[in-house]
Amino acid sequence: MIVAMKRGVSGEELKDFIALLERQGLRIHCSQGLTQTVLGLVGDTSGVDEEALLAHHLVEKVLRVQEPYKRANRLFHPEDTRIDVPGPDGGLRHIGAGELGIIAGPCSVESREQIVLVAESVKKAGAGFLRGGVFKPRTSPYSFQGLGCKGLDLLLAAKRETGLPIVTEIMGIHQLEVFDGVDIIQVGARNMQNFTLLRELGRCRKPILLKRGLASTITELLMAAEYIMSGGNDRIILCERGIRTFDTYTRNTLDLSSIPALKRQSHLPVIVDPSHATGLAWMVPAMARAAVAAGADGLILEVHNNPEAALCDGEQSITLESFASLMGVLERYAEIEGKSLYRNPGTP
Amino acid sequence: MIVAMKRGVSGEELKDFIALLERQGLRIHCSQGLTQTVLGLVGDTSGVDEEALLAHHLVEKVLRVQEPYKRANRLFHPEDTRIDVPGPDGGLRHIGAGELGIIAGPCSVESREQIVLVAESVKKAGAGFLRGGVFKPRTSPYSFQGLGCKGLDLLLAAKRETGLPIVTEIMGIHQLEVFDGVDIIQVGARNMQNFTLLRELGRCRKPILLKRGLASTITELLMAAEYIMSGGNDRIILCERGIRTFDTYTRNTLDLSSIPALKRQSHLPVIVDPSHATGLAWMVPAMARAAVAAGADGLILEVHNNPEAALCDGEQSITLESFASLMGVLERYAEIEGKSLYRNPGTP
Amino acid sequence: MIVAMKRGVSGEELKDFIALLERQGLRIHCSQGLTQTVLGLVGDTSGVDEEALLAHHLVEKVLRVQEPYKRANRLFHPEDTRIDVPGPDGGLRHIGAGELGIIAGPCSVESREQIVLVAESVKKAGAGFLRGGVFKPRTSPYSFQGLGCKGLDLLLAAKRETGLPIVTEIMGIHQLEVFDGVDIIQVGARNMQNFTLLRELGRCRKPILLKRGLASTITELLMAAEYIMSGGNDRIILCERGIRTFDTYTRNTLDLSSIPALKRQSHLPVIVDPSHATGLAWMVPAMARAAVAAGADGLILEVHNNPEAALCDGEQSITLESFASLMGVLERYAEIEGKSLYRNPGTP
Amino acid sequence: MIVAMKRGVSGEELKDFIALLERQGLRIHCSQGLTQTVLGLVGDTSGVDEEALLAHHLVEKVLRVQEPYKRANRLFHPEDTRIDVPGPDGGLRHIGAGELGIIAGPCSVESREQIVLVAESVKKAGAGFLRGGVFKPRTSPYSFQGLGCKGLDLLLAAKRETGLPIVTEIMGIHQLEVFDGVDIIQVGARNMQNFTLLRELGRCRKPILLKRGLASTITELLMAAEYIMSGGNDRIILCERGIRTFDTYTRNTLDLSSIPALKRQSHLPVIVDPSHATGLAWMVPAMARAAVAAGADGLILEVHNNPEAALCDGEQSITLESFASLMGVLERYAEIEGKSLYRNPGTP
Repeated sequence: MIVAMKRGVSGEELKDFIALLERQGLRIHCSQGLTQTVLGLVGDTSGVDEEALLAHHLVEKVLRVQEPYKRANRLFHPEDTRIDVPGPDGGLRHIGAGELGIIAGPCSVESREQIVLVAESVKKAGAGFLRGGVFKPRTSPYSFQGLGCKGLDLLLAAKRETGLPIVTEIMGIHQLEVFDGVDIIQVGARNMQNFTLLRELGRCRKPILLKRGLASTITELLMAAEYIMSGGNDRIILCERGIRTFDTYTRNTLDLSSIPALKRQSHLPVIVDPSHATGLAWMVPAMARAAVAAGADGLILEVHNNPEAALCDGEQSITLESFASLMGVLERYAEIEGKSLYRNPGTP
Repeated sequence: MIVAMKRGVSGEELKDFIALLERQGLRIHCSQGLTQTVLGLVGDTSGVDEEALLAHHLVEKVLRVQEPYKRANRLFHPEDTRIDVPGPDGGLRHIGAGELGIIAGPCSVESREQIVLVAESVKKAGAGFLRGGVFKPRTSPYSFQGLGCKGLDLLLAAKRETGLPIVTEIMGIHQLEVFDGVDIIQVGARNMQNFTLLRELGRCRKPILLKRGLASTITELLMAAEYIMSGGNDRIILCERGIRTFDTYTRNTLDLSSIPALKRQSHLPVIVDPSHATGLAWMVPAMARAAVAAGADGLILEVHNNPEAALCDGEQSITLESFASLMGVLERYAEIEGKSLYRNPGTP
Repeated sequence: MIVAMKRGVSGEELKDFIALLERQGLRIHCSQGLTQTVLGLVGDTSGVDEEALLAHHLVEKVLRVQEPYKRANRLFHPEDTRIDVPGPDGGLRHIGAGELGIIAGPCSVESREQIVLVAESVKKAGAGFLRGGVFKPRTSPYSFQGLGCKGLDLLLAAKRETGLPIVTEIMGIHQLEVFDGVDIIQVGARNMQNFTLLRELGRCRKPILLKRGLASTITELLMAAEYIMSGGNDRIILCERGIRTFDTYTRNTLDLSSIPALKRQSHLPVIVDPSHATGLAWMVPAMARAAVAAGADGLILEVHNNPEAALCDGEQSITLESFASLMGVLERYAEIEGKSLYRNPGTP
Repeated sequence: MIVAMKRGVSGEELKDFIALLERQGLRIHCSQGLTQTVLGLVGDTSGVDEEALLAHHLVEKVLRVQEPYKRANRLFHPEDTRIDVPGPDGGLRHIGAGELGIIAGPCSVESREQIVLVAESVKKAGAGFLRGGVFKPRTSPYSFQGLGCKGLDLLLAAKRETGLPIVTEIMGIHQLEVFDGVDIIQVGARNMQNFTLLRELGRCRKPILLKRGLASTITELLMAAEYIMSGGNDRIILCERGIRTFDTYTRNTLDLSSIPALKRQSHLPVIVDPSHATGLAWMVPAMARAAVAAGADGLILEVHNNPEAALCDGEQSITLESFASLMGVLERYAEIEGKSLYRNPGTP
């Protein structure tokens, strides 16, 4: 970390300021130029509060050279992290480090027939994981809020019937106790900085699918991962799902440049959710292809047997047929990118 | 709500679609033009899912005429809501409906001496409420996280000593039990769509200071208020605290046009936090004046006895002297705007 | 276009308002519901001013069903437009309708040796067009502004030596006279709404490469194309080059969802500029691949023989070697997407 | 300017890099720490290209301490600049340095009767300048484009009849010849980075009202002013008119924090356009008051005798009565802020 001091700082003031910094456990390298004094802060600066430094009346500017995250940082963990998820059959599914993880399923679990039908269909087409919402974060208190625990039971039934590990969203720490059978716990975009929840998930032993907040920077997403990792849970899957911009053609703006950015900064796998990002089913296949071409480690897609009758988010769900045909193209992209797609046992 | 159908919809398809809507309890007024059919949906449309409608293959566009919020809507509650907060002396402090509420105090409670010193000083200068952070939402897990319950005790001590009602931020529903002595519960910007928390606060009997999320629209802020209100708690104070834009001169961009917007759409009082919005202490007085001129019902300001030594967010805290001098100007603005400032008993 | 009237409009007021609209050459279809009157405006509404309508005291909301652009609209021109550009050898290069156009070259033309070297190298690797800046739009008046007319001469020399058609940016209508030998005229993002320039380019007979403004919506980009097209020049290539968002990891945020969006709304070809969008050379190949996967009709890439010594924008330029290796991968992507890459005569 | 080098830079590489910088006329102060080498660049760095530096393979990060603008910089011109504009009577009107300049008039000049009526009315209410659009930048080529030269004649007639100096927008350098009688030339938001136009205005002797672009930062606005100033024209009035954000309640988001920001960075006067920023006439008075409270040096307001019949932008124009009543309140605000409002000769 580099601190540029204001002009005209006296020797006495400088000495006191350096002492202040040294009390935080840092070594200070001072460089006095003709017009400006610059301090280099050496040591672990991840706990140094940039804004607190800026508040000091002697400080002009601060430049952070080292990133504020450590466990999520590729610098200290150069090789890719791969998340291994056991299926009910004991076999492992992978996401990351060359393995493309495809998570598919309906926005909301609606009935046993629906979730099993979708699960079987996406499994046949090549999905490695089943997603399904049961506790739904809805903007309006008057909208359908998901089937709750009953929905979770249906999701678990579909897991038993198809052997697909399941992914579903958690809304608060009080729900952790019922998430026992869930294989990957999703943290939604609106909860990316729910620090209470993140801390608690750091103590749990399940992989976390962490969605980027609508207005979160690359650094903030990695700091949210760092919250969970600092508690001891290293199994994080980062998920780009669109950011909020001035453009309203799509629901949010899918930021595919976050894929190479996150993968350069971090060793964690990065997947993409084109369904929520665009909000437009007809656009999902193009964005799914682009995500894989940009280096994504996986996708999470909303797939519905009858999008028009979906209880929520129907306009962004693709059909079972559309999903199967997309998987065919993705396979060819994966090959070019040198990645492998999981093959469910018994599928061609 | 108006639904424009796609061209070439057959009479049969239209009939089925209308029946589908009627099953949701709506009356449908159908208007068939030469090239386009338009449906008017009459009844309570606040539960109608706009996106689900758009998912239907016969629908071209949807126009919501009535807002999706009811209890927060000025249409159904034309007069301004005033929030009354009893002090420990039993006397009421007000926010809204012509009463300007000024909430001041340090970002973080640091020690008994500090919080009592600041509390006495801001009270003398005219603040009606004391703020102080004890559970802090920090971007980094390695930053100071607040004094927690110990800090809350210090805040309560300052309340007893000065008679100022206190405002502090809640991070999760598990903290509700220790918030007994807190007079106004603050929901931070990052939790504005923590629906689990909002629902629980709907069941509590304390005023809620609800901060606008960094990327939240006017409608989303009012829907968050609606979540709390739909649970039975009508005492909401809305708070503009800056939105995230491309501009980085200030930490966030203070959107003062949200004041007239929110007050036109809703009867709830609207206050402004120029400290967090700008992140720059020297800019706070100008933005505080502008907020009152734009019609705000109050302000929440970070004031610190020694900003440079603050444990967090020092760069945005104004000094005790700067606060006192600002209050002098605000009084004159309040007079022009026809608003009254609370006078603490025993102050001039 | 649908106009929802305010509640309580009298029959007399409605009659007058309808007469006002009919004087603009529209037929009005009026539908009176129990609580609200809705008007359907039939006819050519592209000249109707939405904001002027909203200014009327009887109007509640306005919903535009038909897009305000006509010549750029796919509705009236369903098949893809292909831009044909003759090379100095008389042979045609294509962009659009299944033909992938690759435009490559340095940010700035610096010397004859440089531009010829780059031109020969990108041609050999498979580029169909040579780009090179000569009049540079720079944020600072003190930065290098390009070689101007001398640079244009060097670019023309490179065109003669390699046979590659050339693309360069125009800064104002006064430069049109020296653009005689330029094959595709580029309008930069900052000039996308320089309506004086757009009108003039409508009278010229050259293809226009129109870059999306940093804060321009899909509709605004198509309206800028419409300005040129309404003057009689239909040969427009749309170019996505990143929008400005809160995120600063990349210079701008490349919005690849604009590709399927623009191609659905319009028949014009859409190319992508990953160099300016990201500002990071190491990220350009990933974003170039993603653009082709998302359906782009071409790319414009900054390629430099020695990026570190570039007079401007070096950090976003890829090397000659990196470009050649990218072209190898793009060929495989193009094949999957069913597109063909131009082969320069005499190259393998 | 501070340059942090990458780790592991060799002594030889460093020597070459420093020599490269010195050839740009800079003195280099080198500080070698244990893990990192930091260079301080001393001298005039306004011509140093930050991005070119970042392109160098030895450079890790760059921190600009000195702003890239000089003539617009308050550092080199501490006292406020006041723009003096002579009226046809020879008397001077002022904007800046304690003088509040109020510019009012219709969006478009429509007829002689209209512009003279509005001019007389706003003059009586206290406006010091008359605005009126004659060349209009419209998003659609099919919308009303202004009366052009005929409109300019009408505006000049209103100037003669009322004695008010006039302000109107220029669209390109070819119009300069007909702008002879115009007192302040406005550069619209969409042309803020039309560098060809800015350069030409640097050679003209009239005050320039420079509007902030929809997606322009504080620095970019000041760099646009610098373009004009570097040509020799120092009479610039900066204008905040809203930026583009995700929020759509108002047309743009009025960024009032830009007022203190611009006034801290620069000596140039700053005015505010609440009409275009909000696009909502009912919101204009609140935002006008807030702008003055935040320290603005003036306002530019759309005022129309009959907003509903306006040929453009009627929804954002306030009535003559509303303007007069607003002026009454602004006078009281100006008094508190220690500013004076121009009094037209013969008005009370």
